[in-house]
Amino acid sequence: MFAKEVYVRRRAELVRKMVAAGQKGILLFVGNVEAPAQYKDNCYKWRQDSSWLYYFGLDDPQYAATIDLEDGSETVFANDVEIGDIIWMGPQPSVASKAESVGVATSAPYAALDAVVAKAISQGRPVHFLPPSRYFNTMKLSALVPGGSPSEAFIKAVISMRLVKEACEIEALDDAGALGQEMHTVARNAIRPGIVEQEIVGLMEGVTLAKGWGVSFPTILTQHGETLHNHLHDKIVEPGKLMVIDAGAESNLHYASDYTRTYPTSGRFTTKQREVYQIVYDCNELAFSLTRPGVTYREVHLAVARKMLEGLSALGLVRGDLDEMTARGIAGLFQPHGLGHNMGLDVHDMEDLGEDLVGYDPDQKRASQLGLGSLRMARRLVPGHVITDEPGIYFIPALIEKWKSEGIGTDCVNFARLKDYYDFGGIRLEDDVLVTPDGARRLGPARLPIAPDDIENVMA
Amino acid sequence: MFAKEVYVRRRAELVRKMVAAGQKGILLFVGNVEAPAQYKDNCYKWRQDSSWLYYFGLDDPQYAATIDLEDGSETVFANDVEIGDIIWMGPQPSVASKAESVGVATSAPYAALDAVVAKAISQGRPVHFLPPSRYFNTMKLSALVPGGSPSEAFIKAVISMRLVKEACEIEALDDAGALGQEMHTVARNAIRPGIVEQEIVGLMEGVTLAKGWGVSFPTILTQHGETLHNHLHDKIVEPGKLMVIDAGAESNLHYASDYTRTYPTSGRFTTKQREVYQIVYDCNELAFSLTRPGVTYREVHLAVARKMLEGLSALGLVRGDLDEMTARGIAGLFQPHGLGHNMGLDVHDMEDLGEDLVGYDPDQKRASQLGLGSLRMARRLVPGHVITDEPGIYFIPALIEKWKSEGIGTDCVNFARLKDYYDFGGIRLEDDVLVTPDGARRLGPARLPIAPDDIENVMA
Repeated sequence: MFAKEVYVRRRAELVRKMVAAGQKGILLFVGNVEAPAQYKDNCYKWRQDSSWLYYFGLDDPQYAATIDLEDGSETVFANDVEIGDIIWMGPQPSVASKAESVGVATSAPYAALDAVVAKAISQGRPVHFLPPSRYFNTMKLSALVPGGSPSEAFIKAVISMRLVKEACEIEALDDAGALGQEMHTVARNAIRPGIVEQEIVGLMEGVTLAKGWGVSFPTILTQHGETLHNHLHDKIVEPGKLMVIDAGAESNLHYASDYTRTYPTSGRFTTKQREVYQIVYDCNELAFSLTRPGVTYREVHLAVARKMLEGLSALGLVRGDLDEMTARGIAGLFQPHGLGHNMGLDVHDMEDLGEDLVGYDPDQKRASQLGLGSLRMARRLVPGHVITDEPGIYFIPALIEKWKSEGIGTDCVNFARLKDYYDFGGIRLEDDVLVTPDGARRLGPARLPIAPDDIENVMA
Repeated sequence: MFAKEVYVRRRAELVRKMVAAGQKGILLFVGNVEAPAQYKDNCYKWRQDSSWLYYFGLDDPQYAATIDLEDGSETVFANDVEIGDIIWMGPQPSVASKAESVGVATSAPYAALDAVVAKAISQGRPVHFLPPSRYFNTMKLSALVPGGSPSEAFIKAVISMRLVKEACEIEALDDAGALGQEMHTVARNAIRPGIVEQEIVGLMEGVTLAKGWGVSFPTILTQHGETLHNHLHDKIVEPGKLMVIDAGAESNLHYASDYTRTYPTSGRFTTKQREVYQIVYDCNELAFSLTRPGVTYREVHLAVARKMLEGLSALGLVRGDLDEMTARGIAGLFQPHGLGHNMGLDVHDMEDLGEDLVGYDPDQKRASQLGLGSLRMARRLVPGHVITDEPGIYFIPALIEKWKSEGIGTDCVNFARLKDYYDFGGIRLEDDVLVTPDGARRLGPARLPIAPDDIENVMA
């Protein structure tokens, strides 16, 4: 948890923004409850709601809070432990003292929330709440505010604050970066033909559990990199393949890291692999070099798409005017995802608040093109934005066949030559980047090896 | 997954039981969906519903099924993947082929379930379903069967089958035992003053992630063993303490193990620690020696309580007639939990189906006494039952003070001497046990060291 002042300041700023936008009524925060994995008492590892963490910091289940926009009063709702709980959970600080530790003077039992919200509704006062990210919260909010819907003013105020990271958050993100890099280093050192993918996953997840909360998202580790989110790890590592590892750590403070590297399972790239790798590497470098305040990440995405098409042209896989192919979205056949996303307390930061509201400026519209249409972060960059830089090239037989059969890009895509790549897999290279006043810097203590020669050297 | 025949046989047996009990209508199975940890696309590790796994085996999200008790027809409901899904998830076998792999001939899209259930309801046919274990399932079942409640006949039929493990399940439980023992061995070897508890947790969880699904429940690893379910691991290991490690593995087939050991952090017990440890060890051994078909586990729990009081008498912590103190539940002050629980696909097997229906025979009633009242498994044992044997002695200052202030047990509890144990912590020792035709055997390949001398030897 950060210092009390951090939470006091954030809540004051939130209220200021809401009032400035002409909003009245109360802000309603519903924290998470435990999430059952099997039965109600056997739950997944406890994870608090991120917006709750941002404004209230208290990392315990079944907390809620209200902030009155008119008189500024704040109340935390949660239950103190009883003797039965003490036997199972040990002595606990009181709810009042926990609330006080984040600067909230008033607390009440969890059940008291119902009457407070009901009273506001009966008085015709707006009850602002955020979109629920879990099924319990969906049910709870339906019960508290029947027929209600999330407050766009509230969502926008929260996004505007969480998008721009404070110094204490950047420090936390660097720590998560260090842990994520440690995971990747352990994984890279474990790659050898004959090992089962799952064994590598266990090793790297053990690292982040030992020092952090765990993984910031389910680990992707696959010799089928053309499958973007592959969570099966039952394959034996084979020689001559490419292994995509997309994984990150969540620190004990709940900040994320998210790195992708692609390794030759035999320690050296084949010529064909290196050719494609070099293109993705160049794209990653280009994106970083373009990242600075004032530029939109949409522009960076498109510059990367152009660079990628340039490289693919050199391999004879596409041909045509680069600007025209970029505009037509031909790169989407090879990279059907966006260049990156915001990152913070969530690895796709605030995705529960709405991808477009988070990732797009009011004057930007999401495209429908494959690839660009999946871009989660298009905004004009400002210092404090934290984003990922993750170009990739994939040869997805089902997608290529679809384009071919539907006649898409037949004038510029060399479908005949692409046949030779149907068993290639995919390559993705991802770093986490902070936008600084004069450019950008990569998060974490150092950079994971990424240049093709460096990869071969560290795997030698 | 087991062989197709296993699932075909189980479903046939289930239908036979329901029909024999005079039941009509349809059985409705709703499998799990992904459980968001943060936003909807960042989920906890996928875990299927256990009863679904038992009868249908298919380990994928958003599956449901119906079985018609009258004509015996079976249908699996799930959605085939589309091109967008293939990009992210790779090519997938069809739902029809997956259903066929567990012997179900008919399949339909997930959304078709609504009409099938609605039709049965409109015809006045009973729709039998099990209690939901997750919030999504609660919502889904409310929508499918408005105002409905779980079917006791269905629950009882499932319990009667899942309670008695088949040969293939016992093999899977032995495998989970092996993995759980490996976790514990790694943890034991890592204990040393100065290490942070969380580092040990990371090491041991890495082991089970490398070869199994993960942990069968959130790991308990604490120098405050008197707190029964302590999931904080932020303490530095101190010399001279007792470290309780209660942890288990869930195998890739989703069977559980659950072991507890208590280690002296400095490698050797103090005299005081060894005295209490010896009592708990004797209780664990006694429980195993009494475990055999025909005996109720309630009787075993009470025999252990008596043994515990005998040992505590020798230490001068209680005094009085052992039978009388046992009957009065005095042991509950030291062991406020039951001796064990059923284990299988869930670590507390089928707890979502109702603790009493699972753990108590129709002629047994749950006690209200502290300790015995928390006994999750009281049944008369039959071959194939899998249970835990986990006595413990804890010195919980808040609980002792409560008894003292309320005048409970003042004639037999030596409250004055107990003061010397307020900083002792707790000791628990747990094995997983299969009831066999002629007695019992412990699951897993060997037994984790447990005798006090053995503990000191392996830690030397």
